[in-house]
Amino acid sequence: MERSGTHEEAKETRWSDRYAQRTYGMKSSAIRELLKYTQDPEMISFAGGLPGPEVFPLAEIEAAAQLVLQGQGRAAVQYSTTEGHLPLREMLVRHMDRYGIKVSPDNVLVTTGAQQALDLIGKLFINPGDHVLTEAPTFLGALQAFTAYQAEYLTVPIDDDGMRVDLLEDALRAGPKFLYVLPNFQNPAGVTLGLERRRRLVELASHYGVPIVEDDPYGQLRYEGEHLPPIVKLDAEFHGCANGERSFRGDVLYLGTLSKTLAPGFRLGWVVAPEDVIRRLVMMKQGADLHTSTFTQMVAYETARGGFLDRHVRTIRSVYRERRDAMLRAMDAQFPKQVRWTRPQGGLFLWVTLPQGMDSSKLLAEALREKVAFVPGTSFFPKGGGAETLRLNFSYSRPPVIEEGIRRLAAVIRANMVKPSSLTEVAAG
Amino acid sequence: MERSGTHEEAKETRWSDRYAQRTYGMKSSAIRELLKYTQDPEMISFAGGLPGPEVFPLAEIEAAAQLVLQGQGRAAVQYSTTEGHLPLREMLVRHMDRYGIKVSPDNVLVTTGAQQALDLIGKLFINPGDHVLTEAPTFLGALQAFTAYQAEYLTVPIDDDGMRVDLLEDALRAGPKFLYVLPNFQNPAGVTLGLERRRRLVELASHYGVPIVEDDPYGQLRYEGEHLPPIVKLDAEFHGCANGERSFRGDVLYLGTLSKTLAPGFRLGWVVAPEDVIRRLVMMKQGADLHTSTFTQMVAYETARGGFLDRHVRTIRSVYRERRDAMLRAMDAQFPKQVRWTRPQGGLFLWVTLPQGMDSSKLLAEALREKVAFVPGTSFFPKGGGAETLRLNFSYSRPPVIEEGIRRLAAVIRANMVKPSSLTEVAAG
Repeated sequence: MERSGTHEEAKETRWSDRYAQRTYGMKSSAIRELLKYTQDPEMISFAGGLPGPEVFPLAEIEAAAQLVLQGQGRAAVQYSTTEGHLPLREMLVRHMDRYGIKVSPDNVLVTTGAQQALDLIGKLFINPGDHVLTEAPTFLGALQAFTAYQAEYLTVPIDDDGMRVDLLEDALRAGPKFLYVLPNFQNPAGVTLGLERRRRLVELASHYGVPIVEDDPYGQLRYEGEHLPPIVKLDAEFHGCANGERSFRGDVLYLGTLSKTLAPGFRLGWVVAPEDVIRRLVMMKQGADLHTSTFTQMVAYETARGGFLDRHVRTIRSVYRERRDAMLRAMDAQFPKQVRWTRPQGGLFLWVTLPQGMDSSKLLAEALREKVAFVPGTSFFPKGGGAETLRLNFSYSRPPVIEEGIRRLAAVIRANMVKPSSLTEVAAG
Repeated sequence: MERSGTHEEAKETRWSDRYAQRTYGMKSSAIRELLKYTQDPEMISFAGGLPGPEVFPLAEIEAAAQLVLQGQGRAAVQYSTTEGHLPLREMLVRHMDRYGIKVSPDNVLVTTGAQQALDLIGKLFINPGDHVLTEAPTFLGALQAFTAYQAEYLTVPIDDDGMRVDLLEDALRAGPKFLYVLPNFQNPAGVTLGLERRRRLVELASHYGVPIVEDDPYGQLRYEGEHLPPIVKLDAEFHGCANGERSFRGDVLYLGTLSKTLAPGFRLGWVVAPEDVIRRLVMMKQGADLHTSTFTQMVAYETARGGFLDRHVRTIRSVYRERRDAMLRAMDAQFPKQVRWTRPQGGLFLWVTLPQGMDSSKLLAEALREKVAFVPGTSFFPKGGGAETLRLNFSYSRPPVIEEGIRRLAAVIRANMVKPSSLTEVAAG
């Protein structure tokens, strides 16, 4: 037994000696690990970024799958082009046009979720040691994608109006490879970048010659207030390119997804970029997964077409608005006054700041015992910090469940706030 | 206009200045480019590696999709775990057990096609400048995946029994990060690594401490002769690990796919590895595409289960055997005697060697005019060479089409062989 033990250890060493440097800086995703807890049926999860399962249009998807397999079955399960299913790309182009994004299908690459767009952008642009400029906090999945290419980070803080663009110039001067920003209902904080800040961001990025990666998974999920123009549109205007084709010589890569409006299990996202960049991303995607599932692309197109997706998004908005309101109402009623939180106008998340000195990671261990889950804020800060912050998702659970979960979480927070002073009292007593 | 032209050029330069070094060595895939020609309905394509569309089990897939959406619809379109759908992984484990590969579901990661397994392995192991040892010729998709991580190559030639293992030691001594091999009906050459060579390969790799990546997309598609044990099994035996769990401390990563046995459009492959390696590959996959489509995983499982996949593979074997035989018969009858080719016992491809001095890339231009496509051999050699070779696929077309395609190709080859001597005659006359 001992001999085989030694043998096995030797094997493990052999492998681990061989891992590339790119693994060293990479943390396992706290969110993915937490998702395991959410399989406990007693657990109320505010942790993931999951759509509410009640809103999935299963009957429509089933009808679409049948239509696709009966009408174009052989094409649907065969190999296809890396660029993506053309009717789907054409639909995405028409859809983006309404938001002022004027492109052709040649500017669109379908990806295996928007996560893959982040990975391909990392692969195309990042040499080991290159800097990427992000908000702090920012989307964990982007950090995972870029860190795999051994990116370093420059960060700019956020406030209730999104990225602090007034603090951007120092970071831009340091020469990042690109700037990554989530302007609408940001993940994790739920905040939205104001219009004047968007314009200033475009000016500054252009002045310092830094391209922008605009990640917009939640843009359509606005529950109140006015839609703001995407950065890619403002960039085109800034460069004086008003007409369709010309606007795609800009400095912005725009990312979209069907995960939040149709179904995440399809793994369908897309990236919009100048044709030269798309061609190179296509080369990267050939080596990464050849192409995204033909079957899911065709079923998604067949489900979404003819105005169904628009009607469905209206349904989602009304469902999630109710859930957001339920969460905010419960927090107003139950959270201690010393706790602060954002009030998102859309999206899936809100962001909680505990009193200074509290640690949301420690709080999580207790919360899980009380059967309520969230994501500690530290995961979202590429350069550390955020121990007193946490992210709550409000899209996944129905209002009564949200209310019960907030009740449990408020109790855990209160218990943790009381402790230090009661200890002091004990010590004093 | 001139001014805007200058403006636009400046933009393109801005992007292209920013591409990472990893793009420099990367060629666009000749195969993918050629696939565009195959959309001409007059074209007979021996170019791609496409399954014959007649064999897709569309009715069974449609029934499975309906069952999945009606029975587990919410789970099927929701986010899921990175590791993959557990019932699918359990089925793959049972299936591999028959081939002597003894693993648990914890040793299996579902990937977005086996192409993604190659990408994740590249991401986990390759630092810029690291060497990978491959056959020459080898699978183009593997070169695309590894080159994106700035791999360099060491190569060993092949003959009719696969990799020339007798020439392996020098390359192993040079210290490659891993060895990549396709033992069964190799892509592109169609050759199979003999049993004694497999054993010797395991010994040598172990002696020099070099892990093996065994890519086995075609192993089940054997049309004649005896199945040979996979390298991963021989490696486990070599290390004296006969029982189930212990066999997974070995030095082999094994890759499988459903693309050739069920449907490539699902984009479903898998990698088998020791648990420690799987955990790290899971981290890489989180950043790459979060997880593979839940929907395609569940539909594939539901289609394949209960013995259907086994029955279906038997059908595929008989269809492709007939197509292989039709191609070989037509080549025997029509190709000039100076041309040589392999006689694969399985898989999708055979490999043609033209007389010295002929260039298959030049031949392709003429062949496309005559409406027949193939892939020139040079694409498959990571360090150059192979100008006189080409790859033919026999799985995609029905026998009469194959016969007509070979007739066209034989004519093009003959025309190109005649020219030099007739020019000589003209010069002499």
